[in-house]
Amino acid sequence: MDATEATSAQTSVGVVIPRRAAFREPLPLKCGRSIANYELAYETYGKLNAARSNAVLVCHALNASHHAAGVYADEPNNVGWWDNMIGPGKPLDTNRFFVVGVNNLGGCHGSTGPLSINPETGVPWGAHFPLVTVEDWVNAQARLADHLGIQQFAAVMGGSLGAMQCLQWAIAYPQRTRHALVIACAPNLSAQNIAFNEVARQAILTDPDFHGGDYYAQGVQPRRGLRVARMVGHITYLSDDEMASKFGRTLKNGRVNYSFDTEFEIESYLRYQADKFSGYFDANTYLRITKALDYFDPAFDHAGDLTRALAPATAGFLVVSFTTDWRFSPERSREIVHALLKNKRDVTYAEIDAPHGHDAFLLDDARYHKLVAAYFDRVFDGVGGGAA
Amino acid sequence: MDATEATSAQTSVGVVIPRRAAFREPLPLKCGRSIANYELAYETYGKLNAARSNAVLVCHALNASHHAAGVYADEPNNVGWWDNMIGPGKPLDTNRFFVVGVNNLGGCHGSTGPLSINPETGVPWGAHFPLVTVEDWVNAQARLADHLGIQQFAAVMGGSLGAMQCLQWAIAYPQRTRHALVIACAPNLSAQNIAFNEVARQAILTDPDFHGGDYYAQGVQPRRGLRVARMVGHITYLSDDEMASKFGRTLKNGRVNYSFDTEFEIESYLRYQADKFSGYFDANTYLRITKALDYFDPAFDHAGDLTRALAPATAGFLVVSFTTDWRFSPERSREIVHALLKNKRDVTYAEIDAPHGHDAFLLDDARYHKLVAAYFDRVFDGVGGGAA
Repeated sequence: MDATEATSAQTSVGVVIPRRAAFREPLPLKCGRSIANYELAYETYGKLNAARSNAVLVCHALNASHHAAGVYADEPNNVGWWDNMIGPGKPLDTNRFFVVGVNNLGGCHGSTGPLSINPETGVPWGAHFPLVTVEDWVNAQARLADHLGIQQFAAVMGGSLGAMQCLQWAIAYPQRTRHALVIACAPNLSAQNIAFNEVARQAILTDPDFHGGDYYAQGVQPRRGLRVARMVGHITYLSDDEMASKFGRTLKNGRVNYSFDTEFEIESYLRYQADKFSGYFDANTYLRITKALDYFDPAFDHAGDLTRALAPATAGFLVVSFTTDWRFSPERSREIVHALLKNKRDVTYAEIDAPHGHDAFLLDDARYHKLVAAYFDRVFDGVGGGAA
Repeated sequence: MDATEATSAQTSVGVVIPRRAAFREPLPLKCGRSIANYELAYETYGKLNAARSNAVLVCHALNASHHAAGVYADEPNNVGWWDNMIGPGKPLDTNRFFVVGVNNLGGCHGSTGPLSINPETGVPWGAHFPLVTVEDWVNAQARLADHLGIQQFAAVMGGSLGAMQCLQWAIAYPQRTRHALVIACAPNLSAQNIAFNEVARQAILTDPDFHGGDYYAQGVQPRRGLRVARMVGHITYLSDDEMASKFGRTLKNGRVNYSFDTEFEIESYLRYQADKFSGYFDANTYLRITKALDYFDPAFDHAGDLTRALAPATAGFLVVSFTTDWRFSPERSREIVHALLKNKRDVTYAEIDAPHGHDAFLLDDARYHKLVAAYFDRVFDGVGGGAA
């Protein structure tokens, strides 16, 4: 065990148990369909106080899940995806807050999704699973809050696509969202963002093993497509500079071999990430998540006016961007900040000078974590009723 | 005929005829192999003067060819890829210069490449065609120059990968390269550039129709892979801003349809480009061109010192970059300029404020074209012996 692991273990929430909540009432979806008899996988860390006022919802981005912190008893190496942020004494301090992580509807980590059995047909949903949206996810999360007896979240927090869910919480459930921590976000995808998503989708949709989305019955997965999709994604998560300093033009064997085997370290890294991802992630879920990203655009129904779209939000906001994030650049976060300020909302904005690109929101950067910790001090001041 | 076509016709080189030159002598390749009995497809515009001193070689980038200007008698809409640059009265003025366009070795537009018949086996080269490099291309071009009786080019000119060939000409054949016009170039690919190439390659290599590169015998083409490869490429050719202003979040049908059909204009554009490209381009050629890009790194044999790598070059240089080019950013062009200046070479450098990204080098931008025209005035001053 090295020093980092030791530190992490000392402040970990420890062993956690994933749970499931079942919902009978049909959930109307933005696409016009609805879904009944669905389940959401979730985890909680810390204790809900007597006033039920210290709950924080953590929303996940593209490939993450409800497993945001801690480890599983039978999988001690399966550390939650935001474990550096959540735990006793960490920026989101589980000694103070009751933290809820949830796998979104349509996911592939335990919540009802394309690979779940459709009770109406007895076979996996596959292609027939609806195209879910950020709005749908937030509505489903609100039902989970009801289930847990949480009337209002002290804060809703997320990065990237997770941050879009925070925006949506603040818009759709202003009374239930006391604070929103919107990290590495954009108010919608740019044409370039959509273009990258479309590359990923085309790679999957045209994979002969995709079988129109009903590949489960064939005993295959469109792994080739998923591999390419993941590689494209990874490039957009890292900054150009970070890739240059991490990999540069370093050759795997010191010289080029004039073959299509991996020559450069960066190729090796991408292939490794692609192989790993395509081994555990469901392609139908991936397709749907990219669509949810494309569709999210709260200003759309307000003729493109983000200020009007955000007018219902009454939460306090922390908006954080990272200088080298070229997927959701600081400029995009500033659009959100400006719209909130025009609405005279309480906003704290920080642009963190970090070299890591979009992925910075997941990393343990001291200035970033101090900022989030300080903001949560403020959130905690308003919790009242004493923490557990 | 609209106004643009009329203008174009007035200054076009008109109907051109592609030619082929056959080479018997084996060409040693950087990979250690050699190739014998190969042909190069080329075109010429304008007239070689009596002193044979007014020849300009135009090197092509990824998907272009020897057909740089004019049209074919039987294909009046097949306009050369740099027709806005090359022609009577145009920046590269065919009233003054004898212009040579050549399809690179390994190409799929007429020069010997993977889809040519390997004389030793009687079947297409396919997977067995060597991995050719920028250095190999330039050596092959030098033989074409011998064949045409051109001892020295007044200028060698290219954009992107074409510009890398210009650098290599200046390094390998200083006595034969009076000027080098190096446009939208980089002295080597960054990790991010290589990463995008690797995505394209993985899409092709894992396409079941690739058959290890010997797909010709199967009567198929790895079109799915080529489509994805082309989409990735296109994203990197356009600036984020250009995509935003050209496509933005414009919906094809005014509303989203919650399906995987095209929803946004940008998706429609990418699919169209992908379909078109995969219908005419050879996958084995595409793979090899991306590798030639990855491998090009003149500083590699000089411990990364570009100044030393460029020391042999004696040409006059015009280096041009475009502000919004994020594939080969101005910063990368400045590396070349600095290395040339350290060698006390004659360099003109311009950073053109253009919105179009990397593709700007192909577009008809007035400031850019005036600059190139002015530089060619200077080149022409040195031609001597009078133009044809």
